[in-house]
Amino acid sequence: MQILHTVPEIVAFRKAAQAAGKTIGLVPTMGALHEGHITLMRAARAACDVVIASVFVNPVQFGPHEDFDKYPRTFAADCEKLEAAGVDAVFHPEPADMYPEGYCTYVNVEGDIVHKLCGAQRPGHFRGVATVVTKLINLSGADEAYFGQKDAQQVVVVRRFVEDLNLPVHINMVPIVREPEGLARSSRNRYLSPAEKTAALVLFRSLKKARAAFDNGERDTSKLKQIVRDELATEKLAVIDYVELNAFPSLKPLPVVNQDALLAIAVKIGKTRLIDNIILEAR
Amino acid sequence: MQILHTVPEIVAFRKAAQAAGKTIGLVPTMGALHEGHITLMRAARAACDVVIASVFVNPVQFGPHEDFDKYPRTFAADCEKLEAAGVDAVFHPEPADMYPEGYCTYVNVEGDIVHKLCGAQRPGHFRGVATVVTKLINLSGADEAYFGQKDAQQVVVVRRFVEDLNLPVHINMVPIVREPEGLARSSRNRYLSPAEKTAALVLFRSLKKARAAFDNGERDTSKLKQIVRDELATEKLAVIDYVELNAFPSLKPLPVVNQDALLAIAVKIGKTRLIDNIILEAR
Repeated sequence: MQILHTVPEIVAFRKAAQAAGKTIGLVPTMGALHEGHITLMRAARAACDVVIASVFVNPVQFGPHEDFDKYPRTFAADCEKLEAAGVDAVFHPEPADMYPEGYCTYVNVEGDIVHKLCGAQRPGHFRGVATVVTKLINLSGADEAYFGQKDAQQVVVVRRFVEDLNLPVHINMVPIVREPEGLARSSRNRYLSPAEKTAALVLFRSLKKARAAFDNGERDTSKLKQIVRDELATEKLAVIDYVELNAFPSLKPLPVVNQDALLAIAVKIGKTRLIDNIILEAR
Repeated sequence: MQILHTVPEIVAFRKAAQAAGKTIGLVPTMGALHEGHITLMRAARAACDVVIASVFVNPVQFGPHEDFDKYPRTFAADCEKLEAAGVDAVFHPEPADMYPEGYCTYVNVEGDIVHKLCGAQRPGHFRGVATVVTKLINLSGADEAYFGQKDAQQVVVVRRFVEDLNLPVHINMVPIVREPEGLARSSRNRYLSPAEKTAALVLFRSLKKARAAFDNGERDTSKLKQIVRDELATEKLAVIDYVELNAFPSLKPLPVVNQDALLAIAVKIGKTRLIDNIILEAR
């Protein structure tokens, strides 16, 4: 597995792959890799001739009071996992490689989709995501790019600007990977104490209760959200940031679930903010 | 010459060219083609296997009180000129092809370079330019793209976001083409009455006076700008919008011309706003 540290290195790698007529798969990550990421790598490996993973904690998508500095960085361990997953190259630039002096261009998705859910609490977050993902797609020459459903709003935003800017890449959404007890895999799970980790099981439990009601015919958005809220309220360590149920992928409001919908939640467990979601599929 | 009307048509054309291993040159225009545009086509024709011209009056780069509706549209005549210049395909979409319902992504160059010169009078103009040019580069798969020096600030902005977003395209700047009397070719020249057209010669005359002073050793920015202003003041029909002399390509302020510099002017002749520029090359 090659490690590409700079923009010229990934450009040379991409040009060689393109000249050889190979299809390129990209999996953008911020490192601290877990089984969720590795599932993305496997999906890329199965579909593409060449797989490039990026490991880059992108400063532009963090707010001034967010956890950029303390975001976990575990590059040596990440490389072992990537190599085991059959990744061909990992792109691991410094912030100054991606945002050199004089840098001033940003990709702005201006629709409602960036102001809801995580965007409401994190102004500028999706501007950072859209900018870095555009750069990574261009640098890698990706034909296929892979994102996890766990960040479902991110997938919606990425698909939106890829279509709007006519980027020649196909965006794949890969289902959430969970720990055996049900907690969605996340790089931030390592912040949780054992007691908090048990408390965090309430997230998926609340979503499953709503899905059970949905499967039994409940279509009222308010009632489905209330089922989630009621279950989350049973856990003293859980503080709700949001519980939202919107049309998917438009994220438009949906009083009645008569089309595919995203039930998404963000909950603080202690100091750690966790997100989870399920997609309710209208038949 | 093929005429490509829709996004799927240009995508299919681009993919066929790429599959055949051909290099692609793109010349984005708003139509109303004149000899300046055709010079861009010839530069592309000389360097690339396949030449795609676009003819699209981009609504996003016009302000609410600008001349979008009355901007000249002469597509049949444009096609004759493009075919004669050896262009392989012209992309001529409708606004709804480029900005369909739900469209909401914009490329924003946030540096000082967009607020100076034409950007000062035209807020949002370069956001529209950056967005449409990004789309056209992605749609065409261009290896090389061609822009005229007449819109020198546009070239600076395009080079900036191409570098920032790591777009895999090389931006070529082609010198200004002038009418025999010296007026820079422009689609807006057709708005000028005969008397205005004579008056408009003052633009290049003022720039030549400054260049003569520069060639004689004048390096003081204020004095060079005053030479231009004094000459423009000799023409009663001319109303100055700006006279600016900045470092090129950074567009940073430059009290003394000790590096390459752009002397750029915008002048209203009657109701028609004209721009012109020269580059002063420090040895």
